[in-house]
Amino acid sequence: MLALRVNQKRLSVRDIAKPDNEHEVLVRVVVSGICNTDLEIARGYAGFNGTIGHEFVGVVEETGQRVVGEINAGCGNCELCRAGDPRHCPNRTVLGIVGRDGAHAEFLQLPAINLLPVPDNIPDEHAAFAEPLAAACGILERVPITRDDSVAVIGDGKLGLLCAQVVTLTGAGTVLIGKHDEKLRIAARRGIETSTPTEAAKRVRQFDVVVEASGAESGFNLALDLLRPRGKLVLKSTFHGTTEVNAARVVVDEISIVGSRCGRFAPALDLLKRSAIDVDSLISEEYPLSKGVHAMKRARAKGVLKVLLRNTA
Amino acid sequence: MLALRVNQKRLSVRDIAKPDNEHEVLVRVVVSGICNTDLEIARGYAGFNGTIGHEFVGVVEETGQRVVGEINAGCGNCELCRAGDPRHCPNRTVLGIVGRDGAHAEFLQLPAINLLPVPDNIPDEHAAFAEPLAAACGILERVPITRDDSVAVIGDGKLGLLCAQVVTLTGAGTVLIGKHDEKLRIAARRGIETSTPTEAAKRVRQFDVVVEASGAESGFNLALDLLRPRGKLVLKSTFHGTTEVNAARVVVDEISIVGSRCGRFAPALDLLKRSAIDVDSLISEEYPLSKGVHAMKRARAKGVLKVLLRNTA
Repeated sequence: MLALRVNQKRLSVRDIAKPDNEHEVLVRVVVSGICNTDLEIARGYAGFNGTIGHEFVGVVEETGQRVVGEINAGCGNCELCRAGDPRHCPNRTVLGIVGRDGAHAEFLQLPAINLLPVPDNIPDEHAAFAEPLAAACGILERVPITRDDSVAVIGDGKLGLLCAQVVTLTGAGTVLIGKHDEKLRIAARRGIETSTPTEAAKRVRQFDVVVEASGAESGFNLALDLLRPRGKLVLKSTFHGTTEVNAARVVVDEISIVGSRCGRFAPALDLLKRSAIDVDSLISEEYPLSKGVHAMKRARAKGVLKVLLRNTA
Repeated sequence: MLALRVNQKRLSVRDIAKPDNEHEVLVRVVVSGICNTDLEIARGYAGFNGTIGHEFVGVVEETGQRVVGEINAGCGNCELCRAGDPRHCPNRTVLGIVGRDGAHAEFLQLPAINLLPVPDNIPDEHAAFAEPLAAACGILERVPITRDDSVAVIGDGKLGLLCAQVVTLTGAGTVLIGKHDEKLRIAARRGIETSTPTEAAKRVRQFDVVVEASGAESGFNLALDLLRPRGKLVLKSTFHGTTEVNAARVVVDEISIVGSRCGRFAPALDLLKRSAIDVDSLISEEYPLSKGVHAMKRARAKGVLKVLLRNTA
């Protein structure tokens, strides 16, 4: 089968053997989405070699059931797994990120417990957003947000646009801060206030919560400036390298910096089913899996949002 | 009156006019304590010029009442002040730190609302610890800690020793991590487990909460290593400059970094009244106020913990 592979920072679409672990479910991938984490992995992040990709919708080969899948596969035995949340299992594998081949392939495997059926009314192209939308919903698992809060989301990339849409559904006053008019317009069409970083920088200490989804050090520092004392900074971007933090500012203003990675899929599927999130506007381009290397290049290009890969086999 | 002043990073004991704001209470200082923040201010932190010092016990000049005082003086009109907590009032002054002369002087002034009577059984030398002990207790305002938690405190300086003692009173398993045998022994005498950083570094991902009270970048990185996924790092030290943070680690392990500055005085006075905290062992040296410059030099010296100044006028 075809698979988009990373080997020592080199990308290629290769013909490899179909996965054949009899303890897991074989899923024929229908559509997969390229995430910024894929781009980071291709640059060496996480030291992963193998098939990349962790956003997908597919069909269980044996039953024909359309599914999406939680990407963290736990050991099943540790305290966390037994409590039903393998997302921090110390022995977990993660689809296309840690110790497990991923979704930019004709087939993938996951434990049965990781798979969720997709409601019929969600198109494949929307279902492929279940994972990143779950990640956006994960903000609310980490920081309660109510209609009384004022929230800024920094970064108008695909993750920031999902986060801003999820946050605004809580009723909280929400501003999306970004540099790209055409991307900000996607949020504006959903009734979300938008701002450039320069304008936003004038609103010092006015926000209860700031979500950093730009992955840039400048975004991190702007976030600190915008937070009121005892405000909460949610870090969503897994960027490479280190960030300079003004620790005294964090102490004096008693700010909380809260890391947020994966979210649960059920709330995301519910939002997709209710068409509560505009994902169509986030899809920039689609390529067959065989063009995966080119698709990755396009996903890196300025102005391009989500690039989808379709399994045409 | 005599006062220990900073002017453009130069320290001196000067004879200045007694404070005379008729809207505030005049307090004759009895004993004041030198804090690391004083040392930082003398090096330029916070850009403060004036009388330094914010840890004190004194006597109200008019009534003879022995008092300690909350150091944040709010505007009295903003939402935060009206809710009874001026610690983050945007227009606050802070004793010896922001816009208000401090406690290393014969007299200081504070609003009446800031002053708390000191129970008779607390000696002056202990009462002078009310402010830093309140700061240590402030950890529990920001992060709930129970007997089921395992907690590491990094830094065996005076703040770390207070934090470790406060944390261990919650019943949580507590380890104090430091480099100085004689300081670690103070904690060990209270039944607190102690460790060197090298030993502690082997306990990767084992702690629910880590309190960073060393003010060193190495302490910050060790803290991240020790935290379990979704663990909480409490930042207590207001150190100068910036710290390199591995943001991906914060996101992937969903760590929370929680700044903590000032705490409420009431719990601290209660602990001192019950002799629940060993502060005697933290007192290294005492000097008359007139020797303030020398006392600051001693407070900076290796192995020296709290240096007290006594108003002998």
